[in-house]
Amino acid sequence: MPHIPLTEGLPGIRGLMAYSPATARPLNELAEILLRYDDNTLTRGERELIGAYVSSLNDCFFCQNVHGALAGYYLDLDMQAIDMIKQRYETTTLSDKLKALLSIAGSVQKGGKYVTAAQIERARAEGATDKEIHDTVLIAAAFCMFNRYVDGLDTWAPRDRQLYIERAPLRAAEGYIDFDLYK
Amino acid sequence: MPHIPLTEGLPGIRGLMAYSPATARPLNELAEILLRYDDNTLTRGERELIGAYVSSLNDCFFCQNVHGALAGYYLDLDMQAIDMIKQRYETTTLSDKLKALLSIAGSVQKGGKYVTAAQIERARAEGATDKEIHDTVLIAAAFCMFNRYVDGLDTWAPRDRQLYIERAPLRAAEGYIDFDLYK
Repeated sequence: MPHIPLTEGLPGIRGLMAYSPATARPLNELAEILLRYDDNTLTRGERELIGAYVSSLNDCFFCQNVHGALAGYYLDLDMQAIDMIKQRYETTTLSDKLKALLSIAGSVQKGGKYVTAAQIERARAEGATDKEIHDTVLIAAAFCMFNRYVDGLDTWAPRDRQLYIERAPLRAAEGYIDFDLYK
Repeated sequence: MPHIPLTEGLPGIRGLMAYSPATARPLNELAEILLRYDDNTLTRGERELIGAYVSSLNDCFFCQNVHGALAGYYLDLDMQAIDMIKQRYETTTLSDKLKALLSIAGSVQKGGKYVTAAQIERARAEGATDKEIHDTVLIAAAFCMFNRYVDGLDTWAPRDRQLYIERAPLRAAEGYIDFDLYK
């Protein structure tokens, strides 16, 4: 049961956003810019994957499945492939640039000071731009917030992962900003 | 040296906000609502203190001094008193409600799942409302993001803590939303 009374049936961060619309607005705007804004050389699938990976490191069931399903939708990968990326991305067929960025994201999850100059150099050597490095760090940092918000208030989430897969196309079509909190 | 090229002379998150104005906007709006919005029974000083405490747990020099100095400004405490609160708040003269909320914030810093029902019960027993518990969790979670953003890109910050103390009244007067990034 959530630590504060939330509207039943709204899973994860959605119940919190209904509870606190004033903070929901900048949180959704941040997600929209970081994960969907078109002025970005990282694809939407790559950005959702970074979020899903960090959420898995933080063991946040809701976020890793929402964003894992979205990454799978954009990248045309099933949940088994997404799970394998979360568990051992270095052994997958992801691009070397994305692997280098996931390594940075994994360090950010532990704490900002865990990011090393060698990780940044590796990302650059694989072609990552300053903005891609910036966005990777901020996406990873933002998911450290979203995950803590969702789990720190002990929100409810459906356990059936198929539901997240089925919902992904709608979320991809609607985005985060025009998100109808009560839908 | 920062991991990406930032405008010299803009410390901590300010250099990042100048680099990325699109994400600066929701980040500043979130800070404004969480730390300054008037519709809140936690005082601005108490909210800044929660942010400073979490930043100290994350060992983020810039954030803990910016927000520690602001907490001191609002609560009429010097930096020595703020440092003592960060190190051992349970032994200070803070209210029992605020101590219970700082305990929750400390768990959120470790991860959302570290918050226990007993911590929530303690906060309620000391008079904390649902909104105060919600805001404490989200403030703590947001600082886990801000701290990782600032340190994950290895930003520069002045080491002289007196500068943060001197700047606090201006920041308190201006807030976060109308923050002129290039000032």
